[in-house]
Amino acid sequence: MSEDLRGYIFSRVAGDMEAIETALADNLTPYFDKVREIAGHILFTGGKRVRPLLMVLCARLCRYDGSDDKRVSVMFEYLHTATLLHDDIVDGAAMRRGSPAAHVVWDPASAVLVGDFLLARSASIAVDTGRIALMKILADILEDMSQGEIHQLARKGNVNLSEAEYRTIILHKTAVLMEGACRSGAILAGASDAHARALADYGRNLGMAFQMIDDLLDYTADTQVLGKAVGADLREGKFTLPLIHALGRADAGDAETIKRIMGNPDVTDAAFETLKRLLETYDGIGYTRRCAEAHIQEARSALDMFEPSETRTLLEKLADYTILRRT
Amino acid sequence: MSEDLRGYIFSRVAGDMEAIETALADNLTPYFDKVREIAGHILFTGGKRVRPLLMVLCARLCRYDGSDDKRVSVMFEYLHTATLLHDDIVDGAAMRRGSPAAHVVWDPASAVLVGDFLLARSASIAVDTGRIALMKILADILEDMSQGEIHQLARKGNVNLSEAEYRTIILHKTAVLMEGACRSGAILAGASDAHARALADYGRNLGMAFQMIDDLLDYTADTQVLGKAVGADLREGKFTLPLIHALGRADAGDAETIKRIMGNPDVTDAAFETLKRLLETYDGIGYTRRCAEAHIQEARSALDMFEPSETRTLLEKLADYTILRRT
Repeated sequence: MSEDLRGYIFSRVAGDMEAIETALADNLTPYFDKVREIAGHILFTGGKRVRPLLMVLCARLCRYDGSDDKRVSVMFEYLHTATLLHDDIVDGAAMRRGSPAAHVVWDPASAVLVGDFLLARSASIAVDTGRIALMKILADILEDMSQGEIHQLARKGNVNLSEAEYRTIILHKTAVLMEGACRSGAILAGASDAHARALADYGRNLGMAFQMIDDLLDYTADTQVLGKAVGADLREGKFTLPLIHALGRADAGDAETIKRIMGNPDVTDAAFETLKRLLETYDGIGYTRRCAEAHIQEARSALDMFEPSETRTLLEKLADYTILRRT
Repeated sequence: MSEDLRGYIFSRVAGDMEAIETALADNLTPYFDKVREIAGHILFTGGKRVRPLLMVLCARLCRYDGSDDKRVSVMFEYLHTATLLHDDIVDGAAMRRGSPAAHVVWDPASAVLVGDFLLARSASIAVDTGRIALMKILADILEDMSQGEIHQLARKGNVNLSEAEYRTIILHKTAVLMEGACRSGAILAGASDAHARALADYGRNLGMAFQMIDDLLDYTADTQVLGKAVGADLREGKFTLPLIHALGRADAGDAETIKRIMGNPDVTDAAFETLKRLLETYDGIGYTRRCAEAHIQEARSALDMFEPSETRTLLEKLADYTILRRT
């Protein structure tokens, strides 16, 4: 099912994806070798280009008929990549997309600076459109994301993190970027405010579901398939919805066990398996999946105001895929 | 002389400085406590506000009569502070302005993220003006600065760094920001392109001189007065003009001595004194000062197209102070 859906989507966006890849590489061509090398390491190792693709598809849904969409859309991949470079330093993550992280291959200093460079590229692309609304979206996203990450960092290892606080964190660190990419597509197409708002709703809900599934996969996936270590969030003291929900429902004894495992950064494989069993017992996994599904339902509903079209179907299927994916 | 000049300047800009301080604090008020705390640590410990002040004075020189200048000018202090936060991580610098650096008080992760947050604030202020030219200046500065820092990092410890390469590095890492602040003042005032270009020339030359004197002070100043360790550049493998020039003129034996000291990150006080003597012998100190003076001459000349006024005099004296300062 998941593979069929992936096949359906990819066959229909292959041309767009190719144009996005070209735009990503073109935009780095005039730069200092070292910058291109480091930026290229993370930009061209397995990124799924979800954010540029969202912008391109949303512009198309709003009947955009220009030729700037792919070139502009990469601003969101640059922004995303910049935050990954900075976040990997923040998290001390050794792996990213199945390869060593940039701050490991080079050094944290280069990763910080290349991240800044990519933020600048992103801003330059927005500026070149001459559309203040796109620049505002970019500035707002960066402000939200950095605040979300600082918030998460400040709450690291706190076993009392509430579901509401978790939702605020993932809204800022993940959903606003997808929201912004979708809204930007509408703006580029000169769509009405109502259509821009609907696509922003679509993107935000997609982003919430996307992050919830990411957090779920950190417990249920296979390290090989995922391209990074399973259980990484737990080891880093990042407590996510599966855990928060299970902890809230566990009896005193099991809550004690869960908290003990949460408090140990060197969690053993056996303890991790115990925890996973408890997340199943107390519906942490199922509840997180249902929350993600509810967001996908919201995302699909937001598209209702658009005429049926192949692009609308694609965006719906992209939403469905978000909760079916295994990596 | 230096103290008199400082007194002259400060007495005339006291009101502007106060308004800039207020704008800096106001702009952080609505944020998450942790963000404000970390951003405040570096923003409110001894920054000289040179960049906002340059923008305010350049706007005034172009007969700006609105009330947005101070509010907008802080975008350059936020941008500057963001790059300081990131650079201190890059350099592993323990001190900044006489206090422990943010990445030491908190952690590198927080310093990276608060830097990103301040970049976002800076972009938001530019966006709020509705002037695309200001956003373009910001994006270009960030692109140049990150490239300049990466360039410097890539050449770290390279004893063959040429004067031309050194000039390219300091242009990017320091001068473009002052250039942008001055140009922005002209733009805010709706000045002609010719006036905006003249003020950009003023700012760029001021920035080149400023960095050259900074690099000189790293050899000649007193750690207590400077607020950071003297000789830090040398220990970090950052070779600057006094060294580059002396090395190019030294005889074979002294060149050997200089290179040996350059290659040792744990340079002793005695070796540092030997090096300082060689920099004097081979005119590294004098030459750097003369280069800075030539840039200040250029900066002053750029002001010639403006009518004489108190503001023009202030900008001239600010330029003079740049090469007389001892910290």
